[in-house]
Amino acid sequence: MRNIKMTVAYDGTLYHGFQKQRGTGLSTIQESLEYALSVLTQEEIVINGSGRTDAGVHALGQVINFQTNSKIAPERFPLAVNSLLPKDIRVLECENVELDFHARFDAKQKTYCYKIYNKRHMSPFWRLYAYHVPVELDVASMQAAARLFEGDHDFRGFCAKGTTVTDYTRTIYNCQVNQEGDMIIFLVTGNGFLWNMVRIMVGTVLEIGLGKRPAEDVVRLLTAGERNLSGMTVPPHGLYLVSVEY
Amino acid sequence: MRNIKMTVAYDGTLYHGFQKQRGTGLSTIQESLEYALSVLTQEEIVINGSGRTDAGVHALGQVINFQTNSKIAPERFPLAVNSLLPKDIRVLECENVELDFHARFDAKQKTYCYKIYNKRHMSPFWRLYAYHVPVELDVASMQAAARLFEGDHDFRGFCAKGTTVTDYTRTIYNCQVNQEGDMIIFLVTGNGFLWNMVRIMVGTVLEIGLGKRPAEDVVRLLTAGERNLSGMTVPPHGLYLVSVEY
Repeated sequence: MRNIKMTVAYDGTLYHGFQKQRGTGLSTIQESLEYALSVLTQEEIVINGSGRTDAGVHALGQVINFQTNSKIAPERFPLAVNSLLPKDIRVLECENVELDFHARFDAKQKTYCYKIYNKRHMSPFWRLYAYHVPVELDVASMQAAARLFEGDHDFRGFCAKGTTVTDYTRTIYNCQVNQEGDMIIFLVTGNGFLWNMVRIMVGTVLEIGLGKRPAEDVVRLLTAGERNLSGMTVPPHGLYLVSVEY
Repeated sequence: MRNIKMTVAYDGTLYHGFQKQRGTGLSTIQESLEYALSVLTQEEIVINGSGRTDAGVHALGQVINFQTNSKIAPERFPLAVNSLLPKDIRVLECENVELDFHARFDAKQKTYCYKIYNKRHMSPFWRLYAYHVPVELDVASMQAAARLFEGDHDFRGFCAKGTTVTDYTRTIYNCQVNQEGDMIIFLVTGNGFLWNMVRIMVGTVLEIGLGKRPAEDVVRLLTAGERNLSGMTVPPHGLYLVSVEY
């Protein structure tokens, strides 16, 4: 028995998220990967993802692992699996790992980015890959606000209602806003993220950029811990899981 | 009567090229634009494009013009038309021009680019927007080869068979190859282009990058003037009409 770790990129546009949804008939990233890997290995493969991504969310470097008896060499796996996958999912890297490695439980930190296309008219090439904000944004205030998320905080005010977790404390190692031409990119690295946490952080920072809130509101909202007070949940198609570190 | 000039961007993936194809039932950029403009102005609008783009080819700055009696101000046109267009076509700019301006006949030069994604595994985000070449390329040779296209040349060897033109001479003002991360970008500006000319130029330069031909082959092929001797026609989805100058 071997344990295989893979790095996977996907365009989430046509999928109902990462996680398998049994009996719903909805296509997911997990099902597509398990199907391709099962055909390839002639075994019934079940994968562990580093975490779920919601419907429409993209990944540049999602990490999965699975156990197999297959003898396929790691360097040959990506090409072989990719030939069985739809073109909007690509295995980029593959390696053998210790039998006890688990893509979710062993993840030490994750990085997400959120792209905001900030120009009067939307580019047809970004319509599925960035959120369109046609009005002027105060990028300096957004940059100052993003920094205020860094550190250990209770993020219950930045979490979708209905979550079942009990510990809302997460550590944000880095949170910044960068401008590259017409794109404003929110980039955040942390030891873990609650449901919709990044999208609510971005929604709050966006409202700061629109002048609806001062940058210091972030501190107030982290202290208040009430979802109702924080900003909007921005749409999924601007969000990317960039990488997972172990 | 007014004459309106518009700059239009489009993702060509779902279209059978720019030009209207009467009675075929195939969707084209021209028909989509004429439909939206006709609904908006309540007139039967017919547009002139700066030139055709083939099925699957994209545009960052296609230019069109049309005559209308509408009193809509130029600065209000883009938002109004965009609300009636599919999201993969966007009007970016609009201005009033002299009544005798014609988007095709008055075009002085055009710029195209062709994107080659040069990495082992294709990115799911570029699958519709760049041509995948997974093997190593000699970029320096490609750069040297591109420069050899500059100047006045007879391009009959770089033109799809079945073209009806009689004058094959075109002037290339600039032709270069740039590398940006995993992307190799072929960029060319000229006073006009024959059918499939850019895609055959890129195919030839690509074969040079693959070591199948020396860079100086470009000179030989321009002199020979035989389509059979030149390189392959690369696929349409890596090609973009960048801009048209008047």
